[in-house]
Amino acid sequence: MIFELLRSVRSRGKLDYCLPRVWLEGWYDGPAKQDGEKLFVDPAVVYSKLRDWLERNKTFDARIGASLAVQKAESGRGWIRKAVLYSSLVRTNSAYNHKGFGRFEQDDVLGYRESGTFLKMTLLLPHLKKLNVNVLYLLPITQSSEMFKKGQIGSPYAVKDFLKIDERYHDPLLNGWKVEDEFAAFVQACHMLGIRVVLDFIPRTAARDCNLILKHPDWFYWVKLEELSGYAPPKVEHLGFCQPSFEQMRELYDLPAVRAHLRKFSPDPSRLDPEKWNNFVKNCDEENFMYELAKTFGVVTAPGFSDWLNDPQPTWDDVTFLRLYLDHPVTAKGKVEEDQPPYVLFDVIKASRFPGEKKNSQLWEYIASVLPEFQRKYGIDGVRLDMGHALPNELQALIMNNARSIDPAFVFIAEELEPHRAIEAAQAGYDVIVGNSWWMLPRFPEKTYEFFQNLSCSLQLPFLAASETPDTPRTVARNEGQRLKKLLPFLCAFAKNGVLTFNCGQEVEETQPMNLGLDSDACGRFTLSCDDEFQGKLAFFDHYVLHWQRSELIDFFAELTTVRKQLLNVLLEGQYRPVYLSWQDGSIANASYWKDEVGVIALANLKLSECSVNALLDQTVGDDIEVMEIQSWDGSGWKEERNSKIIDCNLSPLGFKLCVLKFRRVRNH
Amino acid sequence: MIFELLRSVRSRGKLDYCLPRVWLEGWYDGPAKQDGEKLFVDPAVVYSKLRDWLERNKTFDARIGASLAVQKAESGRGWIRKAVLYSSLVRTNSAYNHKGFGRFEQDDVLGYRESGTFLKMTLLLPHLKKLNVNVLYLLPITQSSEMFKKGQIGSPYAVKDFLKIDERYHDPLLNGWKVEDEFAAFVQACHMLGIRVVLDFIPRTAARDCNLILKHPDWFYWVKLEELSGYAPPKVEHLGFCQPSFEQMRELYDLPAVRAHLRKFSPDPSRLDPEKWNNFVKNCDEENFMYELAKTFGVVTAPGFSDWLNDPQPTWDDVTFLRLYLDHPVTAKGKVEEDQPPYVLFDVIKASRFPGEKKNSQLWEYIASVLPEFQRKYGIDGVRLDMGHALPNELQALIMNNARSIDPAFVFIAEELEPHRAIEAAQAGYDVIVGNSWWMLPRFPEKTYEFFQNLSCSLQLPFLAASETPDTPRTVARNEGQRLKKLLPFLCAFAKNGVLTFNCGQEVEETQPMNLGLDSDACGRFTLSCDDEFQGKLAFFDHYVLHWQRSELIDFFAELTTVRKQLLNVLLEGQYRPVYLSWQDGSIANASYWKDEVGVIALANLKLSECSVNALLDQTVGDDIEVMEIQSWDGSGWKEERNSKIIDCNLSPLGFKLCVLKFRRVRNH
Repeated sequence: MIFELLRSVRSRGKLDYCLPRVWLEGWYDGPAKQDGEKLFVDPAVVYSKLRDWLERNKTFDARIGASLAVQKAESGRGWIRKAVLYSSLVRTNSAYNHKGFGRFEQDDVLGYRESGTFLKMTLLLPHLKKLNVNVLYLLPITQSSEMFKKGQIGSPYAVKDFLKIDERYHDPLLNGWKVEDEFAAFVQACHMLGIRVVLDFIPRTAARDCNLILKHPDWFYWVKLEELSGYAPPKVEHLGFCQPSFEQMRELYDLPAVRAHLRKFSPDPSRLDPEKWNNFVKNCDEENFMYELAKTFGVVTAPGFSDWLNDPQPTWDDVTFLRLYLDHPVTAKGKVEEDQPPYVLFDVIKASRFPGEKKNSQLWEYIASVLPEFQRKYGIDGVRLDMGHALPNELQALIMNNARSIDPAFVFIAEELEPHRAIEAAQAGYDVIVGNSWWMLPRFPEKTYEFFQNLSCSLQLPFLAASETPDTPRTVARNEGQRLKKLLPFLCAFAKNGVLTFNCGQEVEETQPMNLGLDSDACGRFTLSCDDEFQGKLAFFDHYVLHWQRSELIDFFAELTTVRKQLLNVLLEGQYRPVYLSWQDGSIANASYWKDEVGVIALANLKLSECSVNALLDQTVGDDIEVMEIQSWDGSGWKEERNSKIIDCNLSPLGFKLCVLKFRRVRNH
Repeated sequence: MIFELLRSVRSRGKLDYCLPRVWLEGWYDGPAKQDGEKLFVDPAVVYSKLRDWLERNKTFDARIGASLAVQKAESGRGWIRKAVLYSSLVRTNSAYNHKGFGRFEQDDVLGYRESGTFLKMTLLLPHLKKLNVNVLYLLPITQSSEMFKKGQIGSPYAVKDFLKIDERYHDPLLNGWKVEDEFAAFVQACHMLGIRVVLDFIPRTAARDCNLILKHPDWFYWVKLEELSGYAPPKVEHLGFCQPSFEQMRELYDLPAVRAHLRKFSPDPSRLDPEKWNNFVKNCDEENFMYELAKTFGVVTAPGFSDWLNDPQPTWDDVTFLRLYLDHPVTAKGKVEEDQPPYVLFDVIKASRFPGEKKNSQLWEYIASVLPEFQRKYGIDGVRLDMGHALPNELQALIMNNARSIDPAFVFIAEELEPHRAIEAAQAGYDVIVGNSWWMLPRFPEKTYEFFQNLSCSLQLPFLAASETPDTPRTVARNEGQRLKKLLPFLCAFAKNGVLTFNCGQEVEETQPMNLGLDSDACGRFTLSCDDEFQGKLAFFDHYVLHWQRSELIDFFAELTTVRKQLLNVLLEGQYRPVYLSWQDGSIANASYWKDEVGVIALANLKLSECSVNALLDQTVGDDIEVMEIQSWDGSGWKEERNSKIIDCNLSPLGFKLCVLKFRRVRNH
């Protein structure tokens, strides 16, 4: 299907489709007008050249609608340990001003869709392949809502329909195609190149006007319209910022603030007036029904909020919780009135710890049916589960079992930031946790050292080794960013248990974050100059185009991932050992891996001054060894080192060095 | 009609309509829930109370569809000299988050329109009346376009239909009403209170997808689609930043850059293919035809640009020029090919100086018919003419004559910033110029002094005496803004030839500018804190809500305008004289006005240090006088001064003082 799709892009006989040079570099040799970092091409020619490139570079005859593992009859989930993962928000990652003048528009006067599409993601595959990416993690691609949206276009995390692909990802260059087929073909192209596709799945919340409401108003929580103006999580000052215990939670119910909060809720509209409801459902506009519903029944789905007490973040106005239990949570026994309508409170949100007794089986089945549908239609290879920690274990297991009964190699990434909870995640069936490398690694030298030497080594599951994520500041925008931009990916590549992870835009030194969710303050959104069209824009809420430009990082990442790929066997199967150094003050990060007769040593200077240090090989291995050959790499080419059991290292400020050696063991202790 | 309109707002029996306290202060006594600066009310009750207030406060039984002057059978345009003018962008001025929670939405879940409407402008009338406003100047209210829009919602200056009122100004609280009637009723309410309504009229440019295109494609300039990416005013580096002379303009035609520019234009689509055009017009969507037109014919209306050579500002992508002449300008004689399609160049833009020979009479008549329609339907009292300086004199005269044949008291405000061109404006028939007080006055002490003492006194026409405008930074955001916020309006109130002018939001110390057009750089848009919802938003391009809060300026402006009103007779008809001071170093601004036996003296200290000075009355008047009584006012109440021919003044940094005296002349020199 992908070849057919690429063939259906028509020519208008003009070089008027503007693309970033970076996208085409190294593979496109058709006609083009160049203007700085921009190339003007004929879309039909570009996609035809892409088809040729794909034909030449494909390593597997992938078909539609099955994961790569299923197609290759593999059942293990070890592939995620070998991953170079690239996280991508499609609407941003492949957005570009294709008319090449004026300002960005979602759809432009030439008929080009400037916001991201799956077709254009296909165009990025040569670029991703250059970076040796083999897992593409896509932020939500489902139909998102604009109700109570944040920013210009709202967040992809406000899911309006769990099963529909957002129409905006259709490319008008593909006349007559449906967005579902475009996505399926894109996954097929990825699979041909050995790239697996992992999605974001958000089973705990939905958009305030989720499509399920019309059929299942009782799957949602409802507040009275007039109570919205004061709606917020009740303040419980004496407990501070914490997650409440069972006893604390029960005591909360006696507080006047909590009782006032409970009174804001309403039965769902179908209970308020069944006849009016039936009529409403029959006559309403299925896409835009919520404002009308609110006016007709005086109720609206409840805004979300955090499950932590006294969390300073505002209510999550663009999402609402799904009602996982049909009764109140165990904590509420004897604490609420007989006729208390379903409500949202800290215990309700955290259904994993405070379940009810009557589970909403129909909803659970629906939730657990979503992934199988995506697996069967598109052949996705895994998901990151959003807020999985708030799901009842049984539901979580149901989701996982359903997915893995179709594809035992289906990977689940836990949205678990705390490294010490890796073990619970492993027990729950996850394969990877997100972890907190993005927070620890930039805090040199102490936290970087602690993370690289201790935390990462003790993890029970692999973690996403990332120097930045879609939620965090960009590496280059941090203090000493120009040095960290290479050091941190180097550490990510050679950290024990790390799954090397890049964030879209990282490779072109994008400074603007995509969201301010983690490790940012409100001012973090202003990294661009005042007259930049995208100043202050966040990809999660606004149209945003990455600043595509040639950067040394592209070549650096390409080389880093190539080196890592060559050594992957040693890194994953070799014996891990800290490096025995001539001295150590907690500012030289180090790791070594030994397998058969190959050793890999990674060293990094976490200080802002130069340092010289010797790596003592015998002591590191714990054996006397005979060194046959040592090659070293510091990001700018390979160098032959003197054969010696002591490696001399001069490391620049925040510099690093990789040594690969061939050796023989001389004598066992 | 206004009473009927106010009566038709229905109650939902809830206090859920959130309004700023400032709007209701001093006149609303109905039920309300208060929450800080917000009041929650029942809209039906508010508008019913407003009706009572209007009934009590109206001074004239105004009807619909005639200016106040016509209704009062007045023919003079002297009213503008007595004006307290308030400039207002309706969509911003009356925007508010009426649900009182979450973020701003154009239309909210309670069914309230949060962006500005005429109905809500009516609600602001008691507030405006408190400030003694008697001329309301509305920025464009016509249907504006979103094509090539800047910001979220585009500029009101991109006029899609010259005759239609923008639908977004309709208020859903007025079920069944049409926006045209809402505007007419609003003007009627203004007239009842003695407030005249002045509009913005933009006859030189139109939106890129102006509705006139379908009927009159030949009224526009067209460029080939594929040329848009390099489209810009041709660079003419050897001449620098200037407006070209006739000879320079002719020489420009020989430059390769200009010849390349001319080749970018195309005949209009009806000439390219008449049959296809007729079909297109028959079948297209009349509201959204331009993208389809562009794709079908490969041409699009040309973006606008400045008539200055080498102007650093970017092209005006959201507007296109109207084709005032059917042939090329006089400057092009013998310089362009026989078949050169109509084009935009510096001479074409400046049709006042470089006309063609064949005027586009049909277009001129259309343009000149716009104001009469607004006069007859809504009874507007005047206009500010945008880019009038670029119109042929004959067209300008036609516009003015048409308007004044209906209403001889109809006022024209010239968009003329240069004070020395006031005389040309007067000759052309204008009544007021905009002038540059907003630029001169904040630059204390030198420019402030020069403006107040010299420039303003020598003007041939009144000017808008404004310390800020919709195009400039806010007074409070300037250096020493906390002092200037009172000083500058004081100077505006007592400057010779000044028409006292306020900018919406000025009275509540709004810091965020509405546009960056004048005296700003790109960073001027960031006056708000990073976590303010409207950080970086400009009212000209985005939804924006003023930060309505109680401010001492409201009372100060109320008092200032009351004082001025009491003395207006003396200010307008009295003899103007500079004040004879005991010393003067160019930092004490002063003016005095003398009529019959009343004198008015205004003094202001333009330095950041205190100063003491004596005003010597005999020398100021040029007569010996006997002082009967002196009252002084410095912004905080009136004070009786010692009866003396020398007034002692202690002025704080950037402080001011007004003295009003009763006197008798003792002896003539």
